Amino acid sequence: MAQQHLDPTDPRSRHAGPVPTGDALAGYLRAQATEFLRALRLHRETGSGANGSEASAEAARALRRSARRISASLHTFQSLLDSEWCEAMRPELAWVSGTLAMEHAYTARLERLLAALHRLSGSAAFPAQTGARAAAASLPKAGAPAQERGNLTVGAAKAGALLDRQLTLARTRAHSTALQALGSSRFHAVADKVAVLASEVPLARTAGTTDLRPLSTAAQDRLADAVTALPLVVAGHPYNAAALVHGLSPDTVPHPQDAPWHQVRLLLRLHRYAREAVSGPKGNAVVDLRLLAAGQALNRHRDASEASAAAAQAARTPRIAPATAYALGVLHADQRHEVEAARFAFQQAWQKETVGAS
Amino acid sequence: MAQQHLDPTDPRSRHAGPVPTGDALAGYLRAQATEFLRALRLHRETGSGANGSEASAEAARALRRSARRISASLHTFQSLLDSEWCEAMRPELAWVSGTLAMEHAYTARLERLLAALHRLSGSAAFPAQTGARAAAASLPKAGAPAQERGNLTVGAAKAGALLDRQLTLARTRAHSTALQALGSSRFHAVADKVAVLASEVPLARTAGTTDLRPLSTAAQDRLADAVTALPLVVAGHPYNAAALVHGLSPDTVPHPQDAPWHQVRLLLRLHRYAREAVSGPKGNAVVDLRLLAAGQALNRHRDASEASAAAAQAARTPRIAPATAYALGVLHADQRHEVEAARFAFQQAWQKETVGAS
Repeated sequence: MAQQHLDPTDPRSRHAGPVPTGDALAGYLRAQATEFLRALRLHRETGSGANGSEASAEAARALRRSARRISASLHTFQSLLDSEWCEAMRPELAWVSGTLAMEHAYTARLERLLAALHRLSGSAAFPAQTGARAAAASLPKAGAPAQERGNLTVGAAKAGALLDRQLTLARTRAHSTALQALGSSRFHAVADKVAVLASEVPLARTAGTTDLRPLSTAAQDRLADAVTALPLVVAGHPYNAAALVHGLSPDTVPHPQDAPWHQVRLLLRLHRYAREAVSGPKGNAVVDLRLLAAGQALNRHRDASEASAAAAQAARTPRIAPATAYALGVLHADQRHEVEAARFAFQQAWQKETVGAS
Repeated sequence: MAQQHLDPTDPRSRHAGPVPTGDALAGYLRAQATEFLRALRLHRETGSGANGSEASAEAARALRRSARRISASLHTFQSLLDSEWCEAMRPELAWVSGTLAMEHAYTARLERLLAALHRLSGSAAFPAQTGARAAAASLPKAGAPAQERGNLTVGAAKAGALLDRQLTLARTRAHSTALQALGSSRFHAVADKVAVLASEVPLARTAGTTDLRPLSTAAQDRLADAVTALPLVVAGHPYNAAALVHGLSPDTVPHPQDAPWHQVRLLLRLHRYAREAVSGPKGNAVVDLRLLAAGQALNRHRDASEASAAAAQAARTPRIAPATAYALGVLHADQRHEVEAARFAFQQAWQKETVGAS
């Protein structure tokens, strides 16, 4: 397992410094709160126009990142904090990061699906770096080079245009919702509380003498338990075709079989943030390559799962042409195989020996 | 490589018996010709009704098997045989085995596609052993158990019915064509020639003193060269997504990327039959597990490739519902991933150390 330097029986952790207590947690929370406020200021300065500039998107990402870390610490180390305050704060932070995440999620989903359509059309000319709009525009483009035009079916082009329409609309709505949220009194109340947190962490009375590490270990154990419950033996066999079972089932999305993997993704994040809090102000420098690879695989799993659902959903649009529906079916199956590939990658990462890289 | 006991420098082959010459080849050809005649007699006795009994299908399989082996030997060992006779005989044998293979191919393709549709619908209740007709009938069946009915979409059911209609029609036509062929004067001429072969093999004058093994080794080298040209590094990386590139390309089937694999499949068969001929009357007992696994992977590759093409073809049927087209798109992609899985399996089998299992 990854946590050797958090193990109190490990000589290295005994020699590494003082036992991390509530004071270390308070320092971590203050740093994250300060980061939240910095990102918020940046977000206001960079403006929040309809399309969102790159700087504004980066600010929103930083806001989400610190909100997630504060929320996770409140969860893992709740017994060291004022519990009433924790319980009031966590849903509000989840609302902030959830609301801000939607716009980015729709953008990424559209990019993923359009890139897949190009790949499936054998169109190597896809300009991946120019973003989703350019990709969508290039799909039905009449003036495209002959070899590219020759590689795109009517169905693929129509499917791309349909997904572009639907996901762009969803993204625009998510953008408005996020803007409204950021201007709401609810958000101002959260920001005020985070401003207080940046200077004054509401620790419980015993926190100063309580070791953080058992709580961090508990988070790690919850992760390990959830991983144990995953079908890792199946996932470790390439081409097990498990992810596409129910690919044609009439149940609407999401696939129930994906849920335990999504859960592990969240638990892995909680574990990672708990490690950061425990390892102090330099916590971000502690990188466990195994956890990183496992986390990336689970992000890919989530993205492919949601993209496959979006393709299936688009195929239910009334009055689409059979060729469009066919392309969306191929796309759906392709993304379900991405789901399966991500599970395989997670299994491979997880079974690796830990590489301590602090 | 697999051929240690054929290697003249290998002490085991020097001690195994006399050098195999044209006499061994003649023995092999006589045995295969006798088998051909036996299967033909069986086929006539078991009748050839519209649906073809199990015994009749088995007889047709045996006919094809011996025709393939005779034809392959004529190819590999042509220099030991009357070359004019070889050149006249080979296309006729290819015509026989090709014509007889079609009915079985359509039956197997339909079974594969309907089984996949059931798997993709999450319907574990699929009675795999009852054959394609029962599977097709169960797809739109109104009286199916609730949990099965709940797992089948309208699209999957309609796609299954469409494939059943198209492939059953193709199979029926193939059956008629095979029956006509078996009754034709062209076939009688082939059968007469095979009857002569069963007692009298037209060897070249030098055949009695010519070692078969260099010719068999040449067949093996042709196989090895073709395998070297395959993209085995890519195939060895699970989930490389290579087989579905061009999954939406407007080119009609078959996929050009499949051709080198089909070619290796044929060369592997030639190599295997050459080994049989060289190792004498007990040749069939020499089983190389690696070759067997590699051959099975390539058969699966061919079957999945053709099934995916049939799904794509069915999706071009005019006036189908979008839900049907969507299901066919998922099915096409699923079979292309089967293609990829088969390439992975071939790569795994090929890189294994040879296991001598004679």
